[in-house]
Amino acid sequence: MRISVYRKAHFNAAHRLHVDSWTEEQNKKVFGLCNSSNFHGHNYDLEVRVTGEVDPITGMLIDLKVLKDVIKEQIEDRFDHKNLNLDTEEFKTLNPTAENICYVIWQILSAKLGEQYEIGVKLFETPRNFVEYPA
Amino acid sequence: MRISVYRKAHFNAAHRLHVDSWTEEQNKKVFGLCNSSNFHGHNYDLEVRVTGEVDPITGMLIDLKVLKDVIKEQIEDRFDHKNLNLDTEEFKTLNPTAENICYVIWQILSAKLGEQYEIGVKLFETPRNFVEYPA
Amino acid sequence: MRISVYRKAHFNAAHRLHVDSWTEEQNKKVFGLCNSSNFHGHNYDLEVRVTGEVDPITGMLIDLKVLKDVIKEQIEDRFDHKNLNLDTEEFKTLNPTAENICYVIWQILSAKLGEQYEIGVKLFETPRNFVEYPA
Amino acid sequence: MRISVYRKAHFNAAHRLHVDSWTEEQNKKVFGLCNSSNFHGHNYDLEVRVTGEVDPITGMLIDLKVLKDVIKEQIEDRFDHKNLNLDTEEFKTLNPTAENICYVIWQILSAKLGEQYEIGVKLFETPRNFVEYPA
Amino acid sequence: MRISVYRKAHFNAAHRLHVDSWTEEQNKKVFGLCNSSNFHGHNYDLEVRVTGEVDPITGMLIDLKVLKDVIKEQIEDRFDHKNLNLDTEEFKTLNPTAENICYVIWQILSAKLGEQYEIGVKLFETPRNFVEYPA
Amino acid sequence: MRISVYRKAHFNAAHRLHVDSWTEEQNKKVFGLCNSSNFHGHNYDLEVRVTGEVDPITGMLIDLKVLKDVIKEQIEDRFDHKNLNLDTEEFKTLNPTAENICYVIWQILSAKLGEQYEIGVKLFETPRNFVEYPA
Repeated sequence: MRISVYRKAHFNAAHRLHVDSWTEEQNKKVFGLCNSSNFHGHNYDLEVRVTGEVDPITGMLIDLKVLKDVIKEQIEDRFDHKNLNLDTEEFKTLNPTAENICYVIWQILSAKLGEQYEIGVKLFETPRNFVEYPA
Repeated sequence: MRISVYRKAHFNAAHRLHVDSWTEEQNKKVFGLCNSSNFHGHNYDLEVRVTGEVDPITGMLIDLKVLKDVIKEQIEDRFDHKNLNLDTEEFKTLNPTAENICYVIWQILSAKLGEQYEIGVKLFETPRNFVEYPA
Repeated sequence: MRISVYRKAHFNAAHRLHVDSWTEEQNKKVFGLCNSSNFHGHNYDLEVRVTGEVDPITGMLIDLKVLKDVIKEQIEDRFDHKNLNLDTEEFKTLNPTAENICYVIWQILSAKLGEQYEIGVKLFETPRNFVEYPA
Repeated sequence: MRISVYRKAHFNAAHRLHVDSWTEEQNKKVFGLCNSSNFHGHNYDLEVRVTGEVDPITGMLIDLKVLKDVIKEQIEDRFDHKNLNLDTEEFKTLNPTAENICYVIWQILSAKLGEQYEIGVKLFETPRNFVEYPA
Repeated sequence: MRISVYRKAHFNAAHRLHVDSWTEEQNKKVFGLCNSSNFHGHNYDLEVRVTGEVDPITGMLIDLKVLKDVIKEQIEDRFDHKNLNLDTEEFKTLNPTAENICYVIWQILSAKLGEQYEIGVKLFETPRNFVEYPA
Repeated sequence: MRISVYRKAHFNAAHRLHVDSWTEEQNKKVFGLCNSSNFHGHNYDLEVRVTGEVDPITGMLIDLKVLKDVIKEQIEDRFDHKNLNLDTEEFKTLNPTAENICYVIWQILSAKLGEQYEIGVKLFETPRNFVEYPA
């Protein structure tokens, strides 16, 4: 019996969109307000999907407390109340678009939760703009 | 033209997580607070997805009033304001985890709505924890 | 790196469900209150999913401002504060069920956004009733 | 012990804003798109507040089933799936602005629920626009 | 400068409505399904309002971490994953209606947070039914 | 007929909490993570309440388009995608706590909308933490 379990989490962070190899004009033209030099920020809402086989005895796919703790330690503690561009290793050179943040979170959680689970990540930059990996 | 129609519903119920063949220590260790002997409860939110071919004359997949009534009679009347462990046939021996409740609801609705429709069920135990069958 | 980007939008419109080739009795029987001759209305919430390959330089799938503007010009300006049956070309003869509105929006956006993107549309007629194309 | 109990409900309706004694130019200028001659519509969300003294024996202010039924019979059955301008007595000549609809609902519920309760009504025309009476 | 700060929290609990001095018939008649002998349950959402004077140096009314911890220790730890009728001192004899739970929470938080703050409590039994003390 | 009309808006911004006259130790102790030197950010949700007398002819308190435009020009354009500490006049020296931001918005809107309206502002820093002025 293959099922998906979802857990929501969130973190607040500052960022700006910027491609280092571009001129300021190019950056301003492509990223607009999101390129503001002093950063802006978001309440990022995160929805993690874990898919796999239910344990026939417990009737559970994964201990939700374990999942909650992994998300807290691996994602919330890493990004919450941080400046993504300045304070994190992941986005020192990688542009912190919602697409890239979503993919980075997927990589971290997939590596941590192990091969018996298939992971999906939805990241909400605002309630109206969000991304999902894998598609 | 293949499309999906969704309908939301909800029910309030008490439950506890418990594997009868285990010792109290094992149950407490695996299920934690969810094993509390006097039960706790949830507002379960249910999202039912029905997929199939749209009728080219009416432009409808399924009469939403029929779908609403089936969900009410088959799921809400069965589980609402009940103690899942004590008051329902389905969870007399089956552990009422969100995973198992979701699968039981999928079985009931699939049998009732018939083979022309493919059913999907999302069950929210809280706004932050939810499951989906099939994955 | 294939990813999905979502953008939400909304419009308010009046409509009634009606099959012109049917008698009033047939229409009333199948569509019930939704057949009321003087129309009723909804706040339609729209969730557009765009799937494709992320640009490795910008880290973006699509410029969200472009996506927002396309949805505004192609969908919101076309349907907002309109009577779908009387004021729009699309539903002059096509019954404006949620299923048909969803499919029409998918056709318009797919044609406009181009072949490099795969489009999905979720249309909420109310927070409890919604449809998705493709399934 | 004075307390407030809230109950939410909703109805879907068509309307247009129009002052009969004005010219079409005046109406168009003041009400804009909301004046569209063929109507548009909304999912109206309603939040009713009932304030009074809790019964010391039951620990309840009002039987919620009674409150739910009064709202259904007096408000939902009256306005749901209706054209407010054409199908209701209340808005035959009164302009169906959110302000006026809210006040009319307050009048109906106050008269029906009786003097031992103080009534408040919040009416959401969209999730972003809503009104409250009394202020 | 007098301002209000709000903090949301939640807990999941089982309960039944029951007046011990009444017959089973009276209880069933007044409380209906909520009187089910084996309990049912809810996700209780809690909204705490704290009103007072902002500190002119910090620009804060109250340290939100302190408020969050007080709510966790005084309310969540006391009621979460509990059977309100059987597992708590507060509702051993007091009927656990939303009105009474709301008032009990207000009493606990008012005593704990001290006289410089005025407290308000909104308790959601479901998203559609909620209460507020003081009125 | 005195009524309240509400309009929601939002803006995304970066900020840090900091009292310039304090040592770093004091700032870190009082503001914790919110004091992070490289800023963090939020999706600020804003709920503006306007109270006054309904115009008996139009049945409206205020033209919602006017209200929406005032909020956009005075608040969203001023704060959206900005670093509140570095990019705005208002918080050059004033600590950008939710309490202070809420009060500043109230001052701006009260001055702009004029004396015939009474203004209230609710500012959500996250869905769980929000403030309201006046209390």
